Amino acid sequence: MTSIEDDPLQGQRVMAADLRDAWPVLDPEARVEGFRYLTTADAEEFFHELQALDRAQLLLNLPAVEQRWWLRGLAPDDVADLLQATPLEERGKLLALLDDATRKEIGALLAYSEDEAGGLMNPRYARLRADASVDEAISYLRRQTRERVESIYYAYVLDEQQKLVGVVSFRQLMMARGDARVREVMVTDLVTVQDEMDQEAVARVFAQHNLMCVPVLDADGRMKGIVTADDIVDVVREEATEDIQKIGGSAALDAPYLQVGFRDMIRKRGGWLVVLFVGEMLTASAMANYQKEIEATALLALFVPLILSVGGNSGSQASTLVVRAIALGEVRLRDWWRVLGREALMGLALGTLLGGIGFLRVIAWQHLFHNVDDPHLGYYGEHYLLVGATVTVSVMCVAVWGTLSGALLPFVLKLMRLDPATASAPLVATLVDVTGLVIYFTAASLILL
Amino acid sequence: MTSIEDDPLQGQRVMAADLRDAWPVLDPEARVEGFRYLTTADAEEFFHELQALDRAQLLLNLPAVEQRWWLRGLAPDDVADLLQATPLEERGKLLALLDDATRKEIGALLAYSEDEAGGLMNPRYARLRADASVDEAISYLRRQTRERVESIYYAYVLDEQQKLVGVVSFRQLMMARGDARVREVMVTDLVTVQDEMDQEAVARVFAQHNLMCVPVLDADGRMKGIVTADDIVDVVREEATEDIQKIGGSAALDAPYLQVGFRDMIRKRGGWLVVLFVGEMLTASAMANYQKEIEATALLALFVPLILSVGGNSGSQASTLVVRAIALGEVRLRDWWRVLGREALMGLALGTLLGGIGFLRVIAWQHLFHNVDDPHLGYYGEHYLLVGATVTVSVMCVAVWGTLSGALLPFVLKLMRLDPATASAPLVATLVDVTGLVIYFTAASLILL
Repeated sequence: MTSIEDDPLQGQRVMAADLRDAWPVLDPEARVEGFRYLTTADAEEFFHELQALDRAQLLLNLPAVEQRWWLRGLAPDDVADLLQATPLEERGKLLALLDDATRKEIGALLAYSEDEAGGLMNPRYARLRADASVDEAISYLRRQTRERVESIYYAYVLDEQQKLVGVVSFRQLMMARGDARVREVMVTDLVTVQDEMDQEAVARVFAQHNLMCVPVLDADGRMKGIVTADDIVDVVREEATEDIQKIGGSAALDAPYLQVGFRDMIRKRGGWLVVLFVGEMLTASAMANYQKEIEATALLALFVPLILSVGGNSGSQASTLVVRAIALGEVRLRDWWRVLGREALMGLALGTLLGGIGFLRVIAWQHLFHNVDDPHLGYYGEHYLLVGATVTVSVMCVAVWGTLSGALLPFVLKLMRLDPATASAPLVATLVDVTGLVIYFTAASLILL
Repeated sequence: MTSIEDDPLQGQRVMAADLRDAWPVLDPEARVEGFRYLTTADAEEFFHELQALDRAQLLLNLPAVEQRWWLRGLAPDDVADLLQATPLEERGKLLALLDDATRKEIGALLAYSEDEAGGLMNPRYARLRADASVDEAISYLRRQTRERVESIYYAYVLDEQQKLVGVVSFRQLMMARGDARVREVMVTDLVTVQDEMDQEAVARVFAQHNLMCVPVLDADGRMKGIVTADDIVDVVREEATEDIQKIGGSAALDAPYLQVGFRDMIRKRGGWLVVLFVGEMLTASAMANYQKEIEATALLALFVPLILSVGGNSGSQASTLVVRAIALGEVRLRDWWRVLGREALMGLALGTLLGGIGFLRVIAWQHLFHNVDDPHLGYYGEHYLLVGATVTVSVMCVAVWGTLSGALLPFVLKLMRLDPATASAPLVATLVDVTGLVIYFTAASLILL
């Protein structure tokens, strides 16, 4: 009786899920068509779940009457995001659909960039006066629920200059005596953020204090709006995505993977690949300097990829760990010497470990793959111990160098006010490749030649 | 008059911030000492901001009376996290400090693993009956605020079997007629999560629906607790940190960078480095197969690092983009063919771009660095066009191969129920290095030799 076929809603449910699945590959007309096929409730949920860019594109393809209806159902910060994702020439048309008060609010929000606290906040919050009584406050808040205030669960107490003096939760009001003053109930030890604070820093404040909501103040302490934890969930995901994409060696995609156009994708990935390729060309020049040694002892060339990979791997480990520690606020610029000291020891320990394995490998191959004509001459010739020593010393030096370079680069980028995540695994690998070659051939010429 | 020195609180503020800064390098005794030096309000804030592990260590170093006081101030889910970070032999002692009801709640939470919905949820939430009147519901909720319910802003409507039938916000109750039934006001179209759902999936639900709070149900639909957005902010940060550390080629650190002990750090980083080093040793064997060709034409060795880096870079780009897209739910297992088709084209386009630059480089060096004895013989000898062709063809093939391998590996790992983020930049680079050598020397033997 309760099987799937009997559920009258099931058909519609599948529709909404299907539309969500197919969305990335649908053209604008097909999106509108699919959207119109949803029930009103499904359409509303679907519309509110769309990313700003998709929402803007869908809206622009609807008739003006529907545009007005959908726009008015959005919170001001969502409208501002939507307008920022709308081509400039279409913005005026959409703004004209709003009432004056909302248009003014949204104008103020558009003055902020998307990735700062002011661009995240909702300007509609519940406000109270400090000298109101608790009973007055409760009935005032009940009235505010009828207007579109994002949340009445925290009410912000402002003075005449709109400066924030305290916060009181609805729950605290309900537990207090009705004739107490708001001033006596409110909390004054507040966590706040500045309107121009970067969204990554705002996310750190939320994470550190486990907040559901934070008030946003301008430079003069006047309250401008509130940022809520649900928006911060999105911020943290976006910032992590950007960092991961940069660490992988491409520019941030700024859109879901399957929705980035081919040409855009080429631009975002090709740029870094070309820079890395041109940089890596230095290895061909470096190798050319050792061409005579390679001609004399082709054996030398065998270990080049192995030695270089040690630098790349230890370097990308160190750089990603440091990049993430900086992003989380676990490590600050002034901690650089502590990190560097740690990583120097780490590089030495890891290099010794790998160098030892490298030495064992040379010995093992020497003994496993005898030269059948002359048992004294094995795989790596009569000087196999020197070959082993060259590999071991090179691996150790390259590991220390790779680890130190990888750990230092994010700090250098941060000092230059660039994003530390630009210290991508491929960039670090490329940077240490040339030095790796110089280290290896220098060790070889000292030990082996 | 309002300078920093005049603020009587400033001294204490600096103390709390100082303690937070110094925390990672303090030993347990110094931590307790610093903690006791804080004002009660500061200590309370400080204690609530600590991570579970630090909180457990601090608590174990306090006398039993204080332990009881601090434990009782924590929400049940926080106590459960704290106990999970406490050595097994100490848990009983701490559990004994709690009252029976709380101990039972916490026992139920400890049955869940930390990283699933049941391990994140708070079992204290506001509940209502569907046939209560709105007025009864409001006064019942006001009474519940006196007990320690995490949030009364959403009240969950349960039937006799504890099954969730609807949700009503406090705001909706206040806007409704007092004699209406809760049933008429509540929302029944609910977003819920299962108690055994992975926390990463829970985070995706929050992000997709922009939620502040979600109810957790067991397999039979019985309500077990609520998860709030502030906890999800932490989850998203932790999961991204794990992914980033894996992408960089180390095991997840599971603790702030500066707090990981040296030996632990060696283990977490050395493990992967050894695996990669042993894998990369195959390049030495592969190169040995071409030793004769290198002896004959040492020129061949010059381009080895350049060609291999193309595979590593294009591969780590593709793998990190796909890993992140899978983690965000933008790409699912069954999308693999779409991703692979896209990446094949992308690899071809990027390979053509880089191959073209490589060809230009050979021509340019040939003409810039003449052989002074014989102007027909340049840097790369008389067959420089063939050298250029070899480099170009190899770069193109290696780029396509690297991109495809990088894009495919996360899907293979996911299919094997491993974490796709294990497809780290260094792992992909190592995997494509051997193939890169084979491609290059095959191209050389076909074109040049």
